[in-house]
Amino acid sequence: MLSWLKQYHRDLLAGDVTAGIIVVLMMVPQGMAYALVAGLPPVAGLYASLLPACAYALFGSSMVQSVGPMAITSLMTASSLAGLAPAGSELYSAMAAQMTLIAGVVLFLCGLLRLGFLAQFLSRPVLSGFTSGAALVIAASQFSTLLGGSLKQINLPGAAIGLSSLLLLWLARQYLMRLLKSLGLAGKVADILAKMAPVFVLALAILCVLLLNLEQAGVQVVGKVPSGLPALGLPLAFGQMRELLMPSLLIGFMIFLSSQSAAVSLAQKRGERINGNHELLGLGAANLASAVSGGFPVTGSISRSAVNYTAGANTPLASVITTVLMAVLLSVPTGWMSPLPLSALAATIMIAVLGMLDFETPREAWRYDRGDALAWGVTLAGVLLLGVEEGVIVGLLLSLGTLIARASRPHIAVIGRIPGTEHYRNVSRYAVETRPELLLLRVDAAIFFGNAERISDSVLEQLQDSQRDVVLVLSAVNQIDTTGLYTLVELNRALNARGIRLNLAEVKGPVMDRLQRSDLLLSQLSGKVFLSTAAAFSALTEPDNPAATVPANPI
Amino acid sequence: MLSWLKQYHRDLLAGDVTAGIIVVLMMVPQGMAYALVAGLPPVAGLYASLLPACAYALFGSSMVQSVGPMAITSLMTASSLAGLAPAGSELYSAMAAQMTLIAGVVLFLCGLLRLGFLAQFLSRPVLSGFTSGAALVIAASQFSTLLGGSLKQINLPGAAIGLSSLLLLWLARQYLMRLLKSLGLAGKVADILAKMAPVFVLALAILCVLLLNLEQAGVQVVGKVPSGLPALGLPLAFGQMRELLMPSLLIGFMIFLSSQSAAVSLAQKRGERINGNHELLGLGAANLASAVSGGFPVTGSISRSAVNYTAGANTPLASVITTVLMAVLLSVPTGWMSPLPLSALAATIMIAVLGMLDFETPREAWRYDRGDALAWGVTLAGVLLLGVEEGVIVGLLLSLGTLIARASRPHIAVIGRIPGTEHYRNVSRYAVETRPELLLLRVDAAIFFGNAERISDSVLEQLQDSQRDVVLVLSAVNQIDTTGLYTLVELNRALNARGIRLNLAEVKGPVMDRLQRSDLLLSQLSGKVFLSTAAAFSALTEPDNPAATVPANPI
Repeated sequence: MLSWLKQYHRDLLAGDVTAGIIVVLMMVPQGMAYALVAGLPPVAGLYASLLPACAYALFGSSMVQSVGPMAITSLMTASSLAGLAPAGSELYSAMAAQMTLIAGVVLFLCGLLRLGFLAQFLSRPVLSGFTSGAALVIAASQFSTLLGGSLKQINLPGAAIGLSSLLLLWLARQYLMRLLKSLGLAGKVADILAKMAPVFVLALAILCVLLLNLEQAGVQVVGKVPSGLPALGLPLAFGQMRELLMPSLLIGFMIFLSSQSAAVSLAQKRGERINGNHELLGLGAANLASAVSGGFPVTGSISRSAVNYTAGANTPLASVITTVLMAVLLSVPTGWMSPLPLSALAATIMIAVLGMLDFETPREAWRYDRGDALAWGVTLAGVLLLGVEEGVIVGLLLSLGTLIARASRPHIAVIGRIPGTEHYRNVSRYAVETRPELLLLRVDAAIFFGNAERISDSVLEQLQDSQRDVVLVLSAVNQIDTTGLYTLVELNRALNARGIRLNLAEVKGPVMDRLQRSDLLLSQLSGKVFLSTAAAFSALTEPDNPAATVPANPI
Repeated sequence: MLSWLKQYHRDLLAGDVTAGIIVVLMMVPQGMAYALVAGLPPVAGLYASLLPACAYALFGSSMVQSVGPMAITSLMTASSLAGLAPAGSELYSAMAAQMTLIAGVVLFLCGLLRLGFLAQFLSRPVLSGFTSGAALVIAASQFSTLLGGSLKQINLPGAAIGLSSLLLLWLARQYLMRLLKSLGLAGKVADILAKMAPVFVLALAILCVLLLNLEQAGVQVVGKVPSGLPALGLPLAFGQMRELLMPSLLIGFMIFLSSQSAAVSLAQKRGERINGNHELLGLGAANLASAVSGGFPVTGSISRSAVNYTAGANTPLASVITTVLMAVLLSVPTGWMSPLPLSALAATIMIAVLGMLDFETPREAWRYDRGDALAWGVTLAGVLLLGVEEGVIVGLLLSLGTLIARASRPHIAVIGRIPGTEHYRNVSRYAVETRPELLLLRVDAAIFFGNAERISDSVLEQLQDSQRDVVLVLSAVNQIDTTGLYTLVELNRALNARGIRLNLAEVKGPVMDRLQRSDLLLSQLSGKVFLSTAAAFSALTEPDNPAATVPANPI
């Protein structure tokens, strides 16, 4: 926590200040645009760009993460609240803040419980399918705004501004960086200027509206943005808790996933490492800060954070500077924002989400692993056909299903001795010697509830009539849980009823410690526990060995 | 399917007939009792004991499973429908049948999709906690019926019958088998007669009601049971689909889990194996049959199936005989059932669920694995405090959480060479030699979305300044999914940026086939792919080896 502050030195300051200034310039239009996506008044987007960045700086582990509103979480806010409150109403804002509060509390608690590993639980194809689907939904939702009203009632000057902004932004995206570089600008500067294109286009749109007096012509604009800092307060309306809980949890999950993937990718560039648990605390704090200051869900966005990084941010001080500048902007008269035409804002949203469309991952996956390509398609279809929240759930179920199926198929090998050595290897891959009276099975996974039955079943499956001893070689077994223990006890009983003994070999220290605490296994085991596979092999296959006789009365 | 029928021979018949008769005697009171738990008229329990057993015989893989109504699924039916329709109404019955239909369709589909492995996804402690909690909830729900009405308005003769039945059943449970054995009966006969105690007690209760004319005294009885076979029909009321879907899925899950644990435990005794996919098909068919014949969710119950097994059942023919006998019972006048007092039925339920209470598992788990004991307690508390459906969900989340946490912590070992050999082992467990310029890491798990980030992170964590080459030893890696591939690509890039090369060794055949299809990895990999760890070690540590120089300009 704040370890970066203790080691701060002057050399870092220039980069942080530059990045802070550039990011605030991006934040203003982005905040208003995402507020639009979320169905909230534009100023809510500015509020959400204020305290959260600072709150994240307290706990988060990324040096260059820029926390604020983001397209997908804004879309999820809108789709969760649709039907619960009229968009733009005070109740709607209160409920958005309350969802942010719940998400923030849950994220913070998850951080305290060290559940950072949860970030790994959507596969990339699933995440890519979800993001692409959400991008399409967002783009579609902005279409009527882009045309200045609705499909039926197009406002011509509004549509003209929207479509020209779209064209300009698209050209900038395709050519501006190369153009600027060919004009002699340094790569970094060209990169940042190209990414600032939306700021210039929106400034141009404001100028158009003012000069051509387009507000009179019915062009929809942002309108009055209240100046001054947001009032602080806890958004508590527990009556809605139940309806809001599930969507808040899903939003919280996406907050973490989006932020984590941005943080990890930038940290790798800087040779740093990200701590998932600190990220959860940072994002929790950021969302709590957003909830109490009239905002909506916030997270780290890869596009904004990449600008922060490219602009020279070295530490979270850049975000603190962004916050201070945003507070200044809100404190001085905000009249200059009001003529901003909504259609131009919609154009920036559409271009931004265009970058989220990803057809490369499914293409690559199709070549590499068809199942993963299918998961991409199913998640995308889930978002488009069922809805955004449902899409997250579809993706989660797909990922968990894969995980469960994988865990339930542990690798088990029948092994034999490499002649003349004490090495034992898979009979299907090496020329090894086996004995008719002995089944040696190596289990290559921890034995736990998800695979215990399968392991026991495959012992019975491999068993041949001549065999009188089964040896489970546990060299790769790091854990046997209670279910695994019960399953071994039952396997022992089932084998015993057929006159076959169950033996164990190469039991690891920690596993043995536990087994010895359980009189269940050790008082019932019909065979022995051998230190090595070799010891088991020789003890159980020497004909004069008393341990090699079978019980007198097999059932 | 029906393979048992093709191999049928005369010797098996006596056992199947005996078991068929004994099970139908148990089924009559049990069916009515569980209908009571489910909030349905008693005859629904008889209908549910009719066709399903036969339908299961077509697809199921257990030879001795007896499929019919069961305590927990009946409780879940009641708790799902509470609030949706008044208990006992026609709508209520229709909705119960519809839930059964959904559960049946889903189970059958899961069978076709070969999802039998899903049975392994509650750990035993979680399942035990759930069952114990459900038993307590069921017992509590029967308390007022046991007292002949309600706590406020006790019907004295009804309560007297209920409490004496309870006492008799408890005594029978504790002492009857021993008593019968000491009277010289064979073990099996004594066992079965003891388990038939509820039948005798209920017959006694009917006699009491008839002889003492207790219906006049206000004792609540089963009342008229319509005779004749049920009308067949599809219970379709798609308006309710949405509300019923989730509870139906949860009931379907519990149907599968209960049946599977009964089937596996009895199959082990008979030296047979259970196929989870066939079980799903069998249970799906059984529930479809129940749905179209006016019943409610059915499953295999360990207590009834154990009686079937002990009474001599050899094949599903026993269940077919049960079905035929039940049809006969329903076709002849059913007046003899109507004076059965509900308080005595409640007593049989309470004694039956007493057997489901399990404090042995948590006791054992407490000694062996505290986390598992905690999971037991949390699931139990979930059922008691939140509700039955919620309890299943709590249990599922606990199990999945454990699974996820486990999968996200793959075993990774830094390895070195055992001096003078070509064997490489964990540096923390063997005295091995390492080289300052080389990091050898063995990954002991498939690389997939759930652990890829963690593996990449631990490479960066283990890395020391002197090292110029990282070798990932993939001898235990059976799969690398798309997410794993991307993560390796990014790890390669991150290492490359620090002037360190990423190499692979001992890549398994199927993994290599895939990697070669992905130009991503092979066109970018900064190091090499070595056949063996030994080859990597010697190539990368010989100073005159050209492969051991670092890129000229590390960033």
